[in-house]
Amino acid sequence: MPSFGWLLAVLSLTAMTGDAFAAAAFTRTERNCSLTPPYLPSTAVNTTLQLQELRERMLPMNISAYIIPGTDAHLSEYIAPRDARMAFMTGFTGSAGTAVVTRTKAALWTDSRYWVQAERQMDCNWELEKDVSISSVAAWLISEVPPGGMIGFDPFLFSLKTHESYAISLESSNRSLKSIPVNLVDQVWIERPPIPPHNLTRLPDRVIQRSWQKKVDQIRLQMRDNPYKPTALLLSALDETAWLFNLRGNDIPYNPFFYSYTLLTMDEIWLFVHMGRVTEELKEYLNTSCTGPLCVQLRSYDSVLSHVKNYVVQPGVEVWIGTEYTNYALYEVITPQDKLMTSSYSPVLTTKAVKDDTEQRILREAHVRDAVAVIQLLMWLEKAVPEGKETELTAAEYVNKCRNKQKDSRGPSFETISASGPNAALAHYSPTEETSRRLTVDEMYLVDSGGQYLDGTTDITRTVHWGTPTAMQKEAFTRVLMGNIEISRTIFPSGTRGVNMEMLGRRALWEVGLNYGHGTGHGVGNYFGVHEWPVGFQSNNIPFTAGMFTSIEPGYYKENDFGIRIEDVAVIVPAQTKYGNNYLTFDTVSLVPYDRKLIDTSLLRSEQIQWLNKYYETIRQLVGPELDNQKLHEEKDWMLRNTEPFSESGSSAAACSSSLAFITLAVALLHNIA
Amino acid sequence: MPSFGWLLAVLSLTAMTGDAFAAAAFTRTERNCSLTPPYLPSTAVNTTLQLQELRERMLPMNISAYIIPGTDAHLSEYIAPRDARMAFMTGFTGSAGTAVVTRTKAALWTDSRYWVQAERQMDCNWELEKDVSISSVAAWLISEVPPGGMIGFDPFLFSLKTHESYAISLESSNRSLKSIPVNLVDQVWIERPPIPPHNLTRLPDRVIQRSWQKKVDQIRLQMRDNPYKPTALLLSALDETAWLFNLRGNDIPYNPFFYSYTLLTMDEIWLFVHMGRVTEELKEYLNTSCTGPLCVQLRSYDSVLSHVKNYVVQPGVEVWIGTEYTNYALYEVITPQDKLMTSSYSPVLTTKAVKDDTEQRILREAHVRDAVAVIQLLMWLEKAVPEGKETELTAAEYVNKCRNKQKDSRGPSFETISASGPNAALAHYSPTEETSRRLTVDEMYLVDSGGQYLDGTTDITRTVHWGTPTAMQKEAFTRVLMGNIEISRTIFPSGTRGVNMEMLGRRALWEVGLNYGHGTGHGVGNYFGVHEWPVGFQSNNIPFTAGMFTSIEPGYYKENDFGIRIEDVAVIVPAQTKYGNNYLTFDTVSLVPYDRKLIDTSLLRSEQIQWLNKYYETIRQLVGPELDNQKLHEEKDWMLRNTEPFSESGSSAAACSSSLAFITLAVALLHNIA
Repeated sequence: MPSFGWLLAVLSLTAMTGDAFAAAAFTRTERNCSLTPPYLPSTAVNTTLQLQELRERMLPMNISAYIIPGTDAHLSEYIAPRDARMAFMTGFTGSAGTAVVTRTKAALWTDSRYWVQAERQMDCNWELEKDVSISSVAAWLISEVPPGGMIGFDPFLFSLKTHESYAISLESSNRSLKSIPVNLVDQVWIERPPIPPHNLTRLPDRVIQRSWQKKVDQIRLQMRDNPYKPTALLLSALDETAWLFNLRGNDIPYNPFFYSYTLLTMDEIWLFVHMGRVTEELKEYLNTSCTGPLCVQLRSYDSVLSHVKNYVVQPGVEVWIGTEYTNYALYEVITPQDKLMTSSYSPVLTTKAVKDDTEQRILREAHVRDAVAVIQLLMWLEKAVPEGKETELTAAEYVNKCRNKQKDSRGPSFETISASGPNAALAHYSPTEETSRRLTVDEMYLVDSGGQYLDGTTDITRTVHWGTPTAMQKEAFTRVLMGNIEISRTIFPSGTRGVNMEMLGRRALWEVGLNYGHGTGHGVGNYFGVHEWPVGFQSNNIPFTAGMFTSIEPGYYKENDFGIRIEDVAVIVPAQTKYGNNYLTFDTVSLVPYDRKLIDTSLLRSEQIQWLNKYYETIRQLVGPELDNQKLHEEKDWMLRNTEPFSESGSSAAACSSSLAFITLAVALLHNIA
Repeated sequence: MPSFGWLLAVLSLTAMTGDAFAAAAFTRTERNCSLTPPYLPSTAVNTTLQLQELRERMLPMNISAYIIPGTDAHLSEYIAPRDARMAFMTGFTGSAGTAVVTRTKAALWTDSRYWVQAERQMDCNWELEKDVSISSVAAWLISEVPPGGMIGFDPFLFSLKTHESYAISLESSNRSLKSIPVNLVDQVWIERPPIPPHNLTRLPDRVIQRSWQKKVDQIRLQMRDNPYKPTALLLSALDETAWLFNLRGNDIPYNPFFYSYTLLTMDEIWLFVHMGRVTEELKEYLNTSCTGPLCVQLRSYDSVLSHVKNYVVQPGVEVWIGTEYTNYALYEVITPQDKLMTSSYSPVLTTKAVKDDTEQRILREAHVRDAVAVIQLLMWLEKAVPEGKETELTAAEYVNKCRNKQKDSRGPSFETISASGPNAALAHYSPTEETSRRLTVDEMYLVDSGGQYLDGTTDITRTVHWGTPTAMQKEAFTRVLMGNIEISRTIFPSGTRGVNMEMLGRRALWEVGLNYGHGTGHGVGNYFGVHEWPVGFQSNNIPFTAGMFTSIEPGYYKENDFGIRIEDVAVIVPAQTKYGNNYLTFDTVSLVPYDRKLIDTSLLRSEQIQWLNKYYETIRQLVGPELDNQKLHEEKDWMLRNTEPFSESGSSAAACSSSLAFITLAVALLHNIA
């Protein structure tokens, strides 16, 4: 699935892609606030009451505006229902946005993929603003808040960078930011969902190479070796604590995370969680009854701020934080400045990015079982679609069912993107009852789905056509595939940044004036987030080293017509070269064949066909036995049919070898005649 | 010529290139401070006196250390002799470095390409430090300066970023920076060279499309359209003022610049120069006798700081500066913060980056004449080297002489890199009497040179072999050439950043485990700097648009053996594509053939051979007539010989077409027999 970097890419590529992602599917179902009385569809939420109550709370705080971001205190990509404050206030349930309430106005900022949805879900209390940059929000604030006015925000929901961006934009305007650590929305949200009740769970030993004690040692070593000599490390992102202790939870949709923070020093470990959810068995596992360097001291989740405050008043301490995932509330209590040490990412995130041998092995194994599920889907669709009864929704349900049957399945890793025809040209589209199209042999179909398994997280996109694709569809698909292959087969020095190679995913498209408006790939976790930072092809990702997993997912989207994406997960592995050492390449671990009907081999160079044939051979070797094990004989046949090697007849080199065969024939004929 | 981004690249690629650029050529000529008494070569400069005098000046300022950067008040890449303060203090004359003097110690930081030179030129008063990052200088300062101590610096010689980096590194250490706007080195430098006496000159109309008045209008339009509504623009880089007024000077080696600043408002223009150097004719040209919006008010160069101070005390003003080229002295007088507006580059630099039609035409024309000079050199070397009398120095002199004979020549655009055998593996090597190697048919030879012409600036590198290259040399050369070709022929959307495409210059090398440790290209001026920012392939360069000129210069360097670089200047032009608009590609304007002996066509793909043949056809079309005009018949023959089209026999596609010919033959034979 394309990551949220999509948005940034869309903004910078607007000139190229035009308005490709502005949806047209919901006309007549959108609000019209210019009518008297305004027209509101049934999907619009009446927000008058909550707005009134929020404004009452704003008055005593002496603020002219209040900012409501769409994230949680861990700056998570997916949030739990209890953190959906923006949705509660606005009615809008999209995954990205910022709301602002002044004493008389209310406005929501969200990007183009959500504009239609916002017009359907919001009532006329809310303006929709379309430039999502913080400077645009700030400009609106300057126009609405009088000079000298204060703008309130919940520091738990701001990253350092978000705060800095607002501060810079407001800096010269005589409006100031006011940090209010108690969230005002929560005060008016009577029916706010509670903390989920589920206990935390530990991973079974069979999926672990490093015990949590070993990981703690590893991280402490990095603290000791750091020239700035931090005395403590504060972990804020939910996957940081989960990774460190080999624990998982169930608080966040699609992500096996639990609400938590960790403060790690050389001698002590404090784990901040909702303590009622830690079983006796887990307490034993975490050594909670002692206080030594490998004993975990449990503290309540809500005490983290006061605990960090108390820690930093001690002389000689210095707290290391990763600025990308630490909220402003924690940052602002680490004072004076010389008690703070920052890097973009914590050492836990950068260490986690490189999978150990066990993690690599089991993540590959999970992909073999995942391939079975996707092959089941594709085979079934091939038979079912011509009968005319299947829809985007039934297809999404089918693949979820197939995954659920696989060993160690833990549900989908994100909401399946099952998109036919023009719907596939919408980024991040997921079908609903209203939008779900019937699948037909006349339209292309894109399915981007993934699973959580105890041993890994998967994410794969295939685009297929069950009828006769147009020449343009075939060309675009083939060029997207060429992009995928060119990245996959490239050899590069260890330490190369993904952003400096990702144009290989676009180059074949660029040649004919095509492009796509999203990122080219993102890191993938081990039973973790499907978008696992900081690995990937974006400009803020860290350099590639062996053992990282990333998706590779070029695409092409033709507005109101079709969408193509080909996404695989690959692991970075050492490459042997003639002269050098320390070179790397990709090894694709997603194992599902591409739609042969859409491949124009005459566009492929012989190296690309060779890569494809080698990949198909790998699918046969790895998925074949698994299909046998699961007694899926029809699927095995389907897989074998779809992984037949391609002849190189399309490429120039191949034309060459076939003409060489012709020569041989001609010479033989000559011989016979003579 | 590789730009100073080289250094950054070297640092990040150290693991790959090893110590490739640590010179070994000067052994026994370096100082040895561990002997008693120390051994000093004759090249070492006695710096005892100036150090003593500087320390005397430091005392009343109450500073424990004084930082001496290697740049000037305009943060220029090349500096005039009067700005060579670091060299005066240390003896070291390399182009990059920072010196620091404390009350008892003195240290110089410079990068690997200059370590040997520093050991030859410095006496034992100076330590040589090899990690050139500001954090390394700061760490040294913290170890040498007692807590509470102050570190002095000349704010004219610090960029904002340099100041910020020092401030961040020193932040938590209880050592502070003290801005001292009067340079302490200048006070002890009795024989400091004076301001150069030359008058400023205006460009002739034939090389100009836009009058200075038109340029001023263009820039004012950008000020008016800027949402932050700046009231003034301050220009600090020397090429900014020179470009705006179509003026040139002679203050800086290799760069036709003159000391200057400009403060431009909507109604007024102040030009800060050494006024005695402005002739009456120029005063008329600049309308200096009036005070309207298109009248230039001349002010003395040294009054810029007080003038800016006076300007900013006015209510409602806001000064726009480009942070990359404005020194800290000017920045710190623009207070309070809301009177300051910043962008990385001033609108003059970003406007100048896109050449107008006339600039494009004349820059192309200059490259035709420049090609004649380089062809003369290469032809002469081919004949002269086997006779055994030529050296790196005589070759450099020869190409300078050839350029001087060309129309509108204004001397070299940088010191020629003329490097044979192992010397070519040293970055930025230029021959001296001591290091100059005799040229022989047994070694590869690299020549990187460029000219200033009234109508353009050139920069070209060719690598040749007059004997029999090894297989590895041929392979490396061919792969470097493939890199050059792959960038040159690529099609990309307008707005793509060079840094995101430059791996195309490396990919063919990476395939076999080779790489290079410098940047892949830099902008080039019109009778301006040979490294013209902000265009190029570095991460801090701006996105490419049509009309920009950049060098393309991949290379490969084998330590103690040989060096290869192939550098051309190219202009970015619109590309026609099948489906899209607004796509670009490169059009190479350097017009000199590559050494055929070093090209292994079997490694090239057919598209690459086609590109090469088309390029050679362009050389014939453009340089042929010029050689005729200049009656250089032997050179014309040499050029024609060296631009013979390549058959595609090496590539697979070519093997194919030749086997197709064979088929035709075979079929014809069969016919005959039948």
